[in-house]
Amino acid sequence: MKTIERWDIFELELKGKPEGNPFMDYEISATFKGDREEKTVEGFYDGNGTYRIRFMPSFEGVYHYEAKGTFQNELTQKDKLCGSFTVSPASSENHGPVRVLDEVRLRYEDGSSYYSIGTTCYAWANQTQSLQEQTLETLKNSPFNKIRFCFFPKYYLYNTKEPLTYPFERGHGEGLDMALVKKAKEECLTFPGMKQAEFDLAFDYTRPNTAHFRRYDERIRQLRDMGVEADIILMHPYDRWGNIMMDAKSCDSYLRYVNARYGAYRNVWWSLANEYDLIRTKSTADWERYGTFFQEKDPYQHLRSIHNCGDFYDHSRPWITHCSLQRIDFYKTTEETGLFMEKYKKPIVWDEICYEGNLELGWGNITGQELVRRFWEGALRGGHCGHGETFLAKDDILWWSHGGRLKGESVPRLQFLLDILKEVPGGYLKEGHGIFDETVGIAATEKTEGRKNRQSPFAPHTSGYEIHYLGIMQPAYRDLYLPEERKFQVDLIDTWEMTVTDMGVHSGIAKIKMPQHPYMAVRIVEVSS
Amino acid sequence: MKTIERWDIFELELKGKPEGNPFMDYEISATFKGDREEKTVEGFYDGNGTYRIRFMPSFEGVYHYEAKGTFQNELTQKDKLCGSFTVSPASSENHGPVRVLDEVRLRYEDGSSYYSIGTTCYAWANQTQSLQEQTLETLKNSPFNKIRFCFFPKYYLYNTKEPLTYPFERGHGEGLDMALVKKAKEECLTFPGMKQAEFDLAFDYTRPNTAHFRRYDERIRQLRDMGVEADIILMHPYDRWGNIMMDAKSCDSYLRYVNARYGAYRNVWWSLANEYDLIRTKSTADWERYGTFFQEKDPYQHLRSIHNCGDFYDHSRPWITHCSLQRIDFYKTTEETGLFMEKYKKPIVWDEICYEGNLELGWGNITGQELVRRFWEGALRGGHCGHGETFLAKDDILWWSHGGRLKGESVPRLQFLLDILKEVPGGYLKEGHGIFDETVGIAATEKTEGRKNRQSPFAPHTSGYEIHYLGIMQPAYRDLYLPEERKFQVDLIDTWEMTVTDMGVHSGIAKIKMPQHPYMAVRIVEVSS
Repeated sequence: MKTIERWDIFELELKGKPEGNPFMDYEISATFKGDREEKTVEGFYDGNGTYRIRFMPSFEGVYHYEAKGTFQNELTQKDKLCGSFTVSPASSENHGPVRVLDEVRLRYEDGSSYYSIGTTCYAWANQTQSLQEQTLETLKNSPFNKIRFCFFPKYYLYNTKEPLTYPFERGHGEGLDMALVKKAKEECLTFPGMKQAEFDLAFDYTRPNTAHFRRYDERIRQLRDMGVEADIILMHPYDRWGNIMMDAKSCDSYLRYVNARYGAYRNVWWSLANEYDLIRTKSTADWERYGTFFQEKDPYQHLRSIHNCGDFYDHSRPWITHCSLQRIDFYKTTEETGLFMEKYKKPIVWDEICYEGNLELGWGNITGQELVRRFWEGALRGGHCGHGETFLAKDDILWWSHGGRLKGESVPRLQFLLDILKEVPGGYLKEGHGIFDETVGIAATEKTEGRKNRQSPFAPHTSGYEIHYLGIMQPAYRDLYLPEERKFQVDLIDTWEMTVTDMGVHSGIAKIKMPQHPYMAVRIVEVSS
Repeated sequence: MKTIERWDIFELELKGKPEGNPFMDYEISATFKGDREEKTVEGFYDGNGTYRIRFMPSFEGVYHYEAKGTFQNELTQKDKLCGSFTVSPASSENHGPVRVLDEVRLRYEDGSSYYSIGTTCYAWANQTQSLQEQTLETLKNSPFNKIRFCFFPKYYLYNTKEPLTYPFERGHGEGLDMALVKKAKEECLTFPGMKQAEFDLAFDYTRPNTAHFRRYDERIRQLRDMGVEADIILMHPYDRWGNIMMDAKSCDSYLRYVNARYGAYRNVWWSLANEYDLIRTKSTADWERYGTFFQEKDPYQHLRSIHNCGDFYDHSRPWITHCSLQRIDFYKTTEETGLFMEKYKKPIVWDEICYEGNLELGWGNITGQELVRRFWEGALRGGHCGHGETFLAKDDILWWSHGGRLKGESVPRLQFLLDILKEVPGGYLKEGHGIFDETVGIAATEKTEGRKNRQSPFAPHTSGYEIHYLGIMQPAYRDLYLPEERKFQVDLIDTWEMTVTDMGVHSGIAKIKMPQHPYMAVRIVEVSS
């Protein structure tokens, strides 16, 4: 009997009908039954009469399955239509899918800590194979445990090359909604200033290009095996190939296809859109239908989100598992984590807070220092941030879209931040009360909210594990108002120089000398003796 | 006939009654009449039976005056009670008082441009004479044309020495409101943690100490002659001498005294309070009474404001001439200039936006870079900012409170900013529409609002004089969308390095190379050929 590990993929390959449009005309599914779960999952067409059904078991033990649907010849493949396999314990690097814990925090399904340090390479999977390999190599040596990227190719500044493959087969515009096409051509709904001549709408949108999706299989699997969550963007506005001009039936079929094909990868997150509000071919009713589809039909209940350019989507919608945010205030970004966490009672993932780089456009030209500052401001409030890099290059390869090599200064500092967070009891910080020039993160396991009174600098310290982050402030020292009867180990953390300096054990009022430059933090941990 | 210049002071010295309490018991005033104005102004008691009446003429020509009141002997000083003098044109450095122009902008009364670059030395006039002289010397070689300081001595961190003089004569608490004293002692209404034993309430609050106020005469005059506006703080919370615990009658008498004594200095601004909301011995009714008093009784209608710690006072009150603000958001400070300008339709003066320094407290530990950035963000929106400096020093002399010498890096950059602003047509910028990573200031004389559409980076440039400030962003270049049919001189301004680089004359789409570091601005000025 075949054995796979928990949260890995069991795949069934079956021959079905190749005639007509196999993507639209037939259905194949299987029911998987183990001791602790029973799930029916849809299969997908993979070309040449081949259908695949993929299943991710959430528990150990023996599973039985039974497939049904429109087959080419049920008799010749009878032994394949039902069977059994064994699920062994997960290996040490496999913690299962990421789940929402305690309303506002993320965690792996096996209970181990997951703190997302994301990056963004929108179009990396559509670059040359060698560049894709380089991107994977870079990721391997980075702190990133989530990457955000698109299924559809991207047309935009520095993104004018054709993709390696197209998501749909060549055709004659089958499945296009001609009213949306007209709207897109007339109102510049995609890349500003795009000319009509630049549209390439000669695809059959009812037929996914299996070569395209097969490439994504490999990349998602590789990311999974590296421990990187794949935050897959299903739609985005920077389109000239008609991918956001499909009619409802074709679009729904695309989502069903993606769900069937990739749902069994434990590292998949569904990001319905990048900048949903710039996709003016879609209405709220569309987004609601898409979101509800995944909520109802994804057997594994992967994380679901929708990312904005201007105003946020209504993140209180029940199908949204976490807030995937682009900052809406230019000056105050991750400082607002608590505000939205309180409003939506969901995990806050700042997927776009301006990228480290020197691009001419305002979302891609901050310093490494500022990006790292935003990460700390987010992390101490219990939120997550996404990295991106936009340094102009002679070869026009920018990490933000193409992947490749990293050039900035922030990445080692993000690893340092992750290392600091891994030491926190419970693996997370939550925002505590501090004085006004510091952001205070308290171990999520703490019962207190930090200082008793946020207003007074003299309010006593109350909790047992705190990090005070000082951002751009540069005090010569900091007075800590520690309880007389308790002892605290104090460390000075230089978040930019990546050093931790032991400042000794203190009680009562402790005057901690500071180095008088920005980006410092003070860690205060209660010790028993 | 005596001659003074326009907006200078004509002073009448008269002998009145010394018996009883001359500050409370008698009134002396004079009516001054010139061709274009007639004003009755109150005199004040200056000790030893001497009363003074001061008058600032707002016009040139011959003035006649006539004094009346409770005199010691009207007969012996009959020749003094009425008389005439001539007012000559103002000298070149004398532009008259600062007035509100066009709702939101300040200007000197003679029509010349005034752009306030303020500083704060709360207690400088209560330090040793030599330190005061040093402060004046520093001011002389600085860009500062406004200084914010207190009449009353200050008790606070680094401010625990006794003042050179006290504002009231020694006494036995005459004029104190004992209910307020009790409240102050019980509820720590002044400096947090202050012990009852630290209060020194042995003054007669009905008797101003003329030695104290005479010292201020000299300092205000010296500031005036240096072209520095005196933004005088009449009350503040950091008090241990009972100055904010006076009963209503004594307090009103103090304000009357100040108005009579200093109103004739053209450089005086009345700041009712520093951090009015921390003065918990005062109610809104009190502030309204004080504000209305100056609105009704100040013959010269000096600028009037009230400064906050937490929430703003209601700056829409008619007696308030301009918004004197301490930033209420820790992260977004002068970026909010436009918001409040629109709300209150009054000049915005950010009197407290965190000081350059390394103090342990969060209002006094930002870098010079950040302070200068805040000034630019304010200035490009047509607002004003206040400087302050809080570097710890062995001698505990910190510019913010004591004056002395400047140690920081911001001051030459503020001079540079002022120099840039002086070249702007109309002497002011107003906020224009730009793209989202730049703050655009347009010459106040311009009719346009800048780019036609704030949303698009490709929207065409419309106005003839613009400065685009890029703050912490570091683009490698910037595309300017200039009209084809017009020509523009483009300069690159490095606001930190204080350089202006000629980037040539451009039309149409111009790609301007940038140095890829923060704190840059691009100036775009239409040229005729």
